[in-house]
Amino acid sequence: MKIDLNADLGESFGPWKMGHDDALLQTVTSANIACGFHAGDPLHMETTVIACDKNKVGIGAHPGFGDLSGFGRYEIKGIPPEQLRSMVIYQIGALQAIARFRGQAVRHVKMHGALANMASRDLSLAELLVGTVHDYDPSLTLIVIASTCLEQAALSAEAKYAAEIFADRAYEDDGTLVSRHEPDALIRDPQICADNILRAVETGTLTSRNGVKVKVNASTICVHGDTPEAVQIAAAVRNRLDQAGVSVRQFE
Amino acid sequence: MKIDLNADLGESFGPWKMGHDDALLQTVTSANIACGFHAGDPLHMETTVIACDKNKVGIGAHPGFGDLSGFGRYEIKGIPPEQLRSMVIYQIGALQAIARFRGQAVRHVKMHGALANMASRDLSLAELLVGTVHDYDPSLTLIVIASTCLEQAALSAEAKYAAEIFADRAYEDDGTLVSRHEPDALIRDPQICADNILRAVETGTLTSRNGVKVKVNASTICVHGDTPEAVQIAAAVRNRLDQAGVSVRQFE
Amino acid sequence: MKIDLNADLGESFGPWKMGHDDALLQTVTSANIACGFHAGDPLHMETTVIACDKNKVGIGAHPGFGDLSGFGRYEIKGIPPEQLRSMVIYQIGALQAIARFRGQAVRHVKMHGALANMASRDLSLAELLVGTVHDYDPSLTLIVIASTCLEQAALSAEAKYAAEIFADRAYEDDGTLVSRHEPDALIRDPQICADNILRAVETGTLTSRNGVKVKVNASTICVHGDTPEAVQIAAAVRNRLDQAGVSVRQFE
Amino acid sequence: MKIDLNADLGESFGPWKMGHDDALLQTVTSANIACGFHAGDPLHMETTVIACDKNKVGIGAHPGFGDLSGFGRYEIKGIPPEQLRSMVIYQIGALQAIARFRGQAVRHVKMHGALANMASRDLSLAELLVGTVHDYDPSLTLIVIASTCLEQAALSAEAKYAAEIFADRAYEDDGTLVSRHEPDALIRDPQICADNILRAVETGTLTSRNGVKVKVNASTICVHGDTPEAVQIAAAVRNRLDQAGVSVRQFE
Repeated sequence: MKIDLNADLGESFGPWKMGHDDALLQTVTSANIACGFHAGDPLHMETTVIACDKNKVGIGAHPGFGDLSGFGRYEIKGIPPEQLRSMVIYQIGALQAIARFRGQAVRHVKMHGALANMASRDLSLAELLVGTVHDYDPSLTLIVIASTCLEQAALSAEAKYAAEIFADRAYEDDGTLVSRHEPDALIRDPQICADNILRAVETGTLTSRNGVKVKVNASTICVHGDTPEAVQIAAAVRNRLDQAGVSVRQFE
Repeated sequence: MKIDLNADLGESFGPWKMGHDDALLQTVTSANIACGFHAGDPLHMETTVIACDKNKVGIGAHPGFGDLSGFGRYEIKGIPPEQLRSMVIYQIGALQAIARFRGQAVRHVKMHGALANMASRDLSLAELLVGTVHDYDPSLTLIVIASTCLEQAALSAEAKYAAEIFADRAYEDDGTLVSRHEPDALIRDPQICADNILRAVETGTLTSRNGVKVKVNASTICVHGDTPEAVQIAAAVRNRLDQAGVSVRQFE
Repeated sequence: MKIDLNADLGESFGPWKMGHDDALLQTVTSANIACGFHAGDPLHMETTVIACDKNKVGIGAHPGFGDLSGFGRYEIKGIPPEQLRSMVIYQIGALQAIARFRGQAVRHVKMHGALANMASRDLSLAELLVGTVHDYDPSLTLIVIASTCLEQAALSAEAKYAAEIFADRAYEDDGTLVSRHEPDALIRDPQICADNILRAVETGTLTSRNGVKVKVNASTICVHGDTPEAVQIAAAVRNRLDQAGVSVRQFE
Repeated sequence: MKIDLNADLGESFGPWKMGHDDALLQTVTSANIACGFHAGDPLHMETTVIACDKNKVGIGAHPGFGDLSGFGRYEIKGIPPEQLRSMVIYQIGALQAIARFRGQAVRHVKMHGALANMASRDLSLAELLVGTVHDYDPSLTLIVIASTCLEQAALSAEAKYAAEIFADRAYEDDGTLVSRHEPDALIRDPQICADNILRAVETGTLTSRNGVKVKVNASTICVHGDTPEAVQIAAAVRNRLDQAGVSVRQFE
């Protein structure tokens, strides 16, 4: 058994620091690096690439809406498809160049925040984003949220992808995430998160908040949610998987 | 005899249009495309790449300071070298990705505005910028202002480069440009510009404003200055060169 | 009979010019000045204030989403109310200071683009925006789109307001605008626009696209739509009103 | 004897937090609030205004260059005077509106970072900035660095001003700051900072790094430098002054 662990990194901007990159680099096997649109800047991208190399963490681009003050979290409606497409390629290319300058390569792409959320629910947007990445460079793996339009689009496009589940989120019976607006959407106890993830990896099923077993075929676990306990959750998940003999390593 | 003609293109931003791209694409052989920091945005970069391809114009990156409202024209002092370096690579990579998505490739890099002006006078900055591009991708040709620190740095680094002279600018006896602050810095008569450029290409010398012959070894002519007559100047230069049997084509 | 004519002005940004401010300043009586978030910048705001003063055009703030590349045209969802509120006050205050520096004062506020469109359909957003402006400075007149949630909110808040109709837009039977997505949403013939507006001012009714008479109680006409013929439409409307003896002047 | 203590506050931006506002609000009597150009945003401005009111701390505008990623720390050359002027008024006005919305008023203005540093050395820039603020609203007090062009300009303009010395910086014999590039520019021991400041307040003299007594006539102490010990220094200075019976309160 094997699994990848991913987290969003490189979210500092100019003089402002964010995140727990040092701790997470010890824990995860894939990093989603902000590309300067919703967070990050060229120099933080470069230092994060160097840190990933040093920690043998896979480098991924994390494109988002160009909305720094909103951190890419607000849904922006009506951007024409050709503009979304060029916006995504621009961000991937910027990170690829910085990685190349450091002798590294970008292995994967994961959409950020509102862009990912919108595409999870909207198949035509999902097809646009997945198709753009696949057409641009079919060797890139897409991290897609499991059981969403993004996974469906990746399947249809025959794109390389890794389906993702979240360590700190509760699930509905159909395999989708419980909405953040509901009180029990977040799981904040690191040991419960670790238990859930180990079971999901070992059995290929998640237990929904109603107690229903849901099939999932996850290749990667997002261990960096917005919970204040994110670092502890990431460490607990990693430890549990290591102790159970699961091979924690990058997806192919 | 042969020569390249270059101009800055793709300087529109969001809803704001700028420049005479359609006319210049008929005239030049190399385009310096704004990369979203001082001008341009992902979609305008893509449409400019497509237009270059259609008109067989060479695609170049035109990195500048991240100062949209100032159009990269203000000198910004004190940015650490590692930050300048990542800023330049980021911009080149973004355009490379967009070009690649369209089956094209970036052939050259030319620094924009204040960044180019500062590096023309400051050898250590010139070495940083030239060295960054050359280390990043030695197949890229650097367009450098002739007889400046940028050319000196390109020579020392043994980088591929094309020295550039300006169709609409007067020259000093040492081959440097007459400062814009002086009244006769700009030449606004298209026929005089065309005469000067043809002579420079045919004889390898420019005549300074004091009447001194100055040796230049230009591989490219910048035909798109800030004069209101830019488009007419570009066309006049192109016509004169064509009629004189000079081969107007991209540098190698 | 009297009526105000308004248009969006001061939409240039940095080196990029936009709009036909010189022509429109001859025609309108109220200017909605971009405040640097979706367009405009401090210096263009100041030059526009000076031009309004010179042409005896009323000065208004035109707050929008902080989305320059999208020109405030994209709907942004989920911004918390307190953030929208401070964003609007910030923009009004910036223009008030620039006006005051020039011995002028801001008379009115009109929301821009997607912010106005969203508030036209969403009563709680309309109440937030109208309430913010009214609480901040009850002497400011709000320009609201007639027969929308914005007008309803202005009425409920007992705020000073001027209801607006559009010279170049077709109307539904209920007094709302025909959606831009429909083919006959825009009226592009300046004389038809002028006819419609004169009739609306004289009779207090608009004729919908289905031929139904709709009561409107407009205090101002927006003469600057997105039609390419905007300047001609503005001039035609102004001429028709002047010739008919309607007093074209600022709302109280 | 009385003195004001000032610090830069409200430097968070969007999702990024910065500074120790809660601690400093207990210590200082005047706050220089970032206005969204080099740091800050409308909502952080509003929450900082509310916090100032609650802690009886004087509200000041802290205008800077529009360079978020550089935090207004890089010197930007060549911006035309009229553009600098409108840029400063814009920022003051935005904060004034937010303060007014909360029943407060802006009492003072202090230039930020590179803008202040450039004006400290360049009398014509100092005159432009001081003159702009004084012309705009003569009731605003300017905080100017003591013994610099800014103080000279404030004197000449007969503007209301408060000269400022720094708790954590070493001084030259002429009352100017030791350059940050020199190794002993920063004083990091809170007790030494407190000793120096108490002596300066009691005697009207600073001791330069060469042991020379320098006359200063400071009305305010900047207690929030860039030293990591900033909060401790601020607290130590405040305690020392309180214990010595100096009245720590806002300048008039």
